[in-house]
Amino acid sequence: MMLKNPASKYRPFIFPFDMSDRTWPSKTIEKAPRWLSTDLRDGNQALADPMDVEKKMRFWKTLMQIGVKEVEVGFPSASQIEFDFVRKLIEEDHVPDDVTIQVLVQAREDLILRTFESLKGAKKACIHFYNATSPLFRRVVFGLEKSDVLALAVKAAQLIKDCAAKQPDTEWSFEYSPETFSATEPDFAVEVCERVMDVWEASPEKPVILNLPATVEVSSPNIYADQIEWFCRQLTRRASAIISLHPHNDRGTGIAAAELGILAGADRIEGCLFGNGERTGNVDLVTLALNLYTQGVSPELDFSDIRSVVNTVIHCNNIPVHPRHPYAGELVFTAFSGSHQDAIKKGFAVHETRNDGVWEMPYLPIDPADLGESYEAVIRVNSQSGKGGIAWILEQDKGLKLPRRLQVDFSRKVQEIADATGKEMQAADIWHAFEDAYYLKGTPKYELVEYIDSGARRAGVDRLFAGRIIHDGLETPVTGRGNGLMAAAVDALNAAYALGIEVLDYHEHALSRGTDAKAVAYVECRTADDRKVFGVGMDVDSATASVKAILSAANAL
Amino acid sequence: MMLKNPASKYRPFIFPFDMSDRTWPSKTIEKAPRWLSTDLRDGNQALADPMDVEKKMRFWKTLMQIGVKEVEVGFPSASQIEFDFVRKLIEEDHVPDDVTIQVLVQAREDLILRTFESLKGAKKACIHFYNATSPLFRRVVFGLEKSDVLALAVKAAQLIKDCAAKQPDTEWSFEYSPETFSATEPDFAVEVCERVMDVWEASPEKPVILNLPATVEVSSPNIYADQIEWFCRQLTRRASAIISLHPHNDRGTGIAAAELGILAGADRIEGCLFGNGERTGNVDLVTLALNLYTQGVSPELDFSDIRSVVNTVIHCNNIPVHPRHPYAGELVFTAFSGSHQDAIKKGFAVHETRNDGVWEMPYLPIDPADLGESYEAVIRVNSQSGKGGIAWILEQDKGLKLPRRLQVDFSRKVQEIADATGKEMQAADIWHAFEDAYYLKGTPKYELVEYIDSGARRAGVDRLFAGRIIHDGLETPVTGRGNGLMAAAVDALNAAYALGIEVLDYHEHALSRGTDAKAVAYVECRTADDRKVFGVGMDVDSATASVKAILSAANAL
Repeated sequence: MMLKNPASKYRPFIFPFDMSDRTWPSKTIEKAPRWLSTDLRDGNQALADPMDVEKKMRFWKTLMQIGVKEVEVGFPSASQIEFDFVRKLIEEDHVPDDVTIQVLVQAREDLILRTFESLKGAKKACIHFYNATSPLFRRVVFGLEKSDVLALAVKAAQLIKDCAAKQPDTEWSFEYSPETFSATEPDFAVEVCERVMDVWEASPEKPVILNLPATVEVSSPNIYADQIEWFCRQLTRRASAIISLHPHNDRGTGIAAAELGILAGADRIEGCLFGNGERTGNVDLVTLALNLYTQGVSPELDFSDIRSVVNTVIHCNNIPVHPRHPYAGELVFTAFSGSHQDAIKKGFAVHETRNDGVWEMPYLPIDPADLGESYEAVIRVNSQSGKGGIAWILEQDKGLKLPRRLQVDFSRKVQEIADATGKEMQAADIWHAFEDAYYLKGTPKYELVEYIDSGARRAGVDRLFAGRIIHDGLETPVTGRGNGLMAAAVDALNAAYALGIEVLDYHEHALSRGTDAKAVAYVECRTADDRKVFGVGMDVDSATASVKAILSAANAL
Repeated sequence: MMLKNPASKYRPFIFPFDMSDRTWPSKTIEKAPRWLSTDLRDGNQALADPMDVEKKMRFWKTLMQIGVKEVEVGFPSASQIEFDFVRKLIEEDHVPDDVTIQVLVQAREDLILRTFESLKGAKKACIHFYNATSPLFRRVVFGLEKSDVLALAVKAAQLIKDCAAKQPDTEWSFEYSPETFSATEPDFAVEVCERVMDVWEASPEKPVILNLPATVEVSSPNIYADQIEWFCRQLTRRASAIISLHPHNDRGTGIAAAELGILAGADRIEGCLFGNGERTGNVDLVTLALNLYTQGVSPELDFSDIRSVVNTVIHCNNIPVHPRHPYAGELVFTAFSGSHQDAIKKGFAVHETRNDGVWEMPYLPIDPADLGESYEAVIRVNSQSGKGGIAWILEQDKGLKLPRRLQVDFSRKVQEIADATGKEMQAADIWHAFEDAYYLKGTPKYELVEYIDSGARRAGVDRLFAGRIIHDGLETPVTGRGNGLMAAAVDALNAAYALGIEVLDYHEHALSRGTDAKAVAYVECRTADDRKVFGVGMDVDSATASVKAILSAANAL
């Protein structure tokens, strides 16, 4: 049972220093941070079935294609598979010259020695070590005082420095994480980091990476940003450190924490593709990168084929990417609702006529084409949809450009079907509904067999229409006259069958795809009892299409 | 292909006013906002297969169980199903007295009239109307000037007021959304809202709801918070308005936008359970509520049976809840990694001994029990796991409390299996591995048939052990003596088979569950060649368990 007053059980996280002079909320992100993918380590660690070497290699290749330059490839001292994978990367020369492989290790001598062994022959490598610094972990997990935690960190940093010196062919970098930073006393976090910086002789020319994890997200992202800004200010040699963030997502605000943390001074983000990782996951690098992209800032990563990235991650992690995942989910470029569809349709129409290349589209913050996605999924139709969406699909699929009032007429018919079935309607369903609605197939009441039209094509001279129509199975000749072909055809039908219809509006356009016909004609007619009926005709010949449209309207009577 | 320099295609969102005197970053959320669920409308609108009446009713009942007091139940003028559902709620008396049903409508006369028709007989109802206000929508979608937008809003507000007056038996409230608020000129948003407030004669006693949607999330959440704080400051009659937020999640920061927006002055949040809704979804009310809960603030909503809420939403929406979804995903309380498991195990041990009821647990920001979840999934074992997790599972599943060095011994064996299979190990797999590792079943080399121990139970007098052992299929009598039963049994075995083993350590405890045995004994022995071997014995009799443990160790030779 949930507590009505959880204050007796849960303590709010309180940042203990005054940050009313914070500067981060007035800043803007103007360039991409350094990215580190921890998919092969922190992500892999949280899978029911961790990746085997084949999957790790596929994931690695995808990271290289995206253009990630720093990858935490494992925890080689903790598992033989991880050790072997690091060796494979090095020995089989899978690491491009501009890419740094990073490995994680605890502050323990045996593990550090084994870690250096795994990296023999690496060109660029980063040793990342951590120990937990928060009061809860000191007290409950390790039974350590602050001084013990400091001593542990200093000793490990020294050993790492010494080991690195013994493998001078590798270009080393060093990273330290005060694990559980987000719940650590801020001044103690600074203290332990400075002690590690001292050991490593950090300098602006050779800065060390200080990684500040929200191991568990314990507060809203503005507080994390305060923590980062405070940390950056307190650090005596800020220029000698790369400030790295490693946000988790326990409160669903990992993306925001990373973004506000960058505003607060961070230089580098550690995360996973689509936010994999322990529990609720690490921060999602794809969303972060594309958030920059849509603000006009290059992420320096390439997601131009996002579907293949999705497929790699799903295959390797055996965890789905949610249909509503930003930028990557299968529904995120889709509008079902009528008003949204209308707006998007209008947006595309305007987009085609502008020439400045700027993307401004209702409901679509990014051009799906930039991610290698088609526009097909942008509009899908169900009972919530309206005329705009239905017309869009007929236009995309069959090249039909329905006049507005015909859109209204047809969308009512589609909505009746969708209401009755309760299901989404695919493009083929909509096309079949269109054929049914306007008698484009089967045996309608009135069917054209053939016709001749004659009469001089000049003003003041009537056109003559002589045709043969099958009406209720009976073929009969009809004739009529009028000031044009359609008028003559209407006259013939009215004379033969006493229909009393009158053409109010007419549109016709060429067709380039979707059907065998080359032309389509749409008519709106008024009936004898003052109703409106619509007709559609399609034919290789544009004149015949218009005659068929009249018959289509007659069929609707 | 993604653009290297997307600034030519995408324009960053820029808030046009100076907000350097913003106050929201120094504030804290101290009480729950008003919640509105828009699942039955904004969520339903974005489903490939929208909910039918039965699903809507199931969803409605779940919302009532959670304790949601404001629910947007549909867009009754847009679809017959939505109209019928509103009627059903009212006519079948499904709405508790303290619950307000809200309906959405566009600023159009025919739709407004139809909307009021749907609400006849409602006790408490809120009419929510909207029109789009952003420059893009004015220009591209509607072709309207600002003055047209204002006139449209004023006219609709007046009609709504008039219609409400004609149905005086309903307790009305009114809501207005400048749709696309997040991309609207801030001063224009204030202007249109104030005009609507004027028409509705908003007062502190009868405030109106101004809902400020991030229809599309166009900026980082701190900017949205600036927009909200700026809006609240500019509003001339702030006390006469309830400021409501309706964040979407296009940038993955909907939760943060809502939280920072509340800091910035908002009173009310519109969202969906687990963040369903158009494209990337609406803000997730569950995460928002539980984020408050873990900071000691009651959300005034009840998620004490979160699994049933998940099941309702999955059933009705036919969209999964991601395994890493905060609080609700199947993996979010699970640790696979060894160091995390150790920490959690220690955390639970300390938790059991404290009596202040405070929840402080490594890696678990919320007590799964508060959500009706068990602790079973907290630790799961694969090749990344360590001794702590494996021991935890044997303790949870079988009641075994393995001594530390036995944990180390057994976890090596488990890791070999996990490395070889690459798969997660279930509790049963671990138990079978344990039985195999310590010869608890099958036909081992040494097997106890029966034994008698005799000798006075007092200091200085040796105990005598006389037993029958099957060794490699051959039953033989063995005898030995020592200062206790175990010493005598070891002596008997060493004498009969020249084993040369010596007991270094011994633990035994009662068993209350998991097996037929009532006692389990663990021994650690040194072999003649100075190796360590471990043995485990289980029996209804505690003395026999210890003898069996010796034989188990002998089998390991």
